[in-house]
Amino acid sequence: MALSARNRLSGTVQSVETDGLMAEVEIELDADQVVTAVITSGSVDRLGVEEGKELSAVIKATEVMVEN
Amino acid sequence: MALSARNRLSGTVQSVETDGLMAEVEIELDADQVVTAVITSGSVDRLGVEEGKELSAVIKATEVMVEN
Amino acid sequence: MALSARNRLSGTVQSVETDGLMAEVEIELDADQVVTAVITSGSVDRLGVEEGKELSAVIKATEVMVEN
Amino acid sequence: MALSARNRLSGTVQSVETDGLMAEVEIELDADQVVTAVITSGSVDRLGVEEGKELSAVIKATEVMVEN
Amino acid sequence: MALSARNRLSGTVQSVETDGLMAEVEIELDADQVVTAVITSGSVDRLGVEEGKELSAVIKATEVMVEN
Amino acid sequence: MALSARNRLSGTVQSVETDGLMAEVEIELDADQVVTAVITSGSVDRLGVEEGKELSAVIKATEVMVEN
Repeated sequence: MALSARNRLSGTVQSVETDGLMAEVEIELDADQVVTAVITSGSVDRLGVEEGKELSAVIKATEVMVEN
Repeated sequence: MALSARNRLSGTVQSVETDGLMAEVEIELDADQVVTAVITSGSVDRLGVEEGKELSAVIKATEVMVEN
Repeated sequence: MALSARNRLSGTVQSVETDGLMAEVEIELDADQVVTAVITSGSVDRLGVEEGKELSAVIKATEVMVEN
Repeated sequence: MALSARNRLSGTVQSVETDGLMAEVEIELDADQVVTAVITSGSVDRLGVEEGKELSAVIKATEVMVEN
Repeated sequence: MALSARNRLSGTVQSVETDGLMAEVEIELDADQVVTAVITSGSVDRLGVEEGKELSAVIKATEVMVEN
Repeated sequence: MALSARNRLSGTVQSVETDGLMAEVEIELDADQVVTAVITSGSVDRLGVEEGKELSAVIKATEVMVEN
């Protein structure tokens, strides 16, 4: 199974904050950089996202901007 | 000047491929992870994006998915 | 392997048009509805997307609008 | 009135869950596939989205990924 | 017919540049501000987008960032 | 510091509604047009977004649709 989204950054869940329908997940990448994802609480439950879990942040290339 | 987008990953431009209106930029992050951005060629010119340049990939948190 | 994106619509590739960096893929869903995806040509190659192939359109819930 | 978004999938609202600013709407398409949309509660009110209502899920083609 | 997307900014098409699958449309809003949209060339044709035409830029609220 | 996102619309914050993780910000543009942004409450705090503040709505061109 492969997904067209070009970006897959592996890391460890640093924090999960669930609030009603939405949840904010902070993922610490290998190089001390942190990625924050806002996903539905339903997906947090379905994937069993919790502190310390290893997973990846996935991002479609057209959603990435560049800052100089 | 600050932007609401929560994710800002610093790295170095590994490649830039411009093709008509669109361009694909590969940014190597500090930990050997690579982020691909699809932006307009107009922005590549305006920001002077070129191989070897240090810049950041910027991503709104609602655009980030999580994969288990 | 599971992805937080809530929407996964299975279908058959009806057409693929590649043009430089970008590609347009039309996927016919089971109920005669068609979904069009614009992805990079790199992903078309990597996933072997071609006419007649069975695959899924995947969409993050925050990207879906509703029309009345 | 026409919109540039290429994808318009007609169906029936299966559930609406409103929680503060955000709402999650599940739309059952004709072929038993379900699409989940996360929109603002303001839009749920303005459009009168409720269980049993017929409406369409609308998605810009650049937001659609492909999974093999 | 109403769409859940909260933002609808009316203006006049200042330029359209079509290049293969993708097109870049610049829309001049009433207050001299310009909005650039990247849509498919297919949608440019279907909607008859051309210089001087009055239309609206439509944006889902979750796609808007804020800069201070 | 420059960002690849092509759209930057300056205005004044008309209202901010924070609800748990998410916040809805209404920005009045110079020509009486209003843009609504849904961002995280964390960003509202970090940027000090409040009624009357002058700031810009920033939008990536690939997120803009066109309506005829």
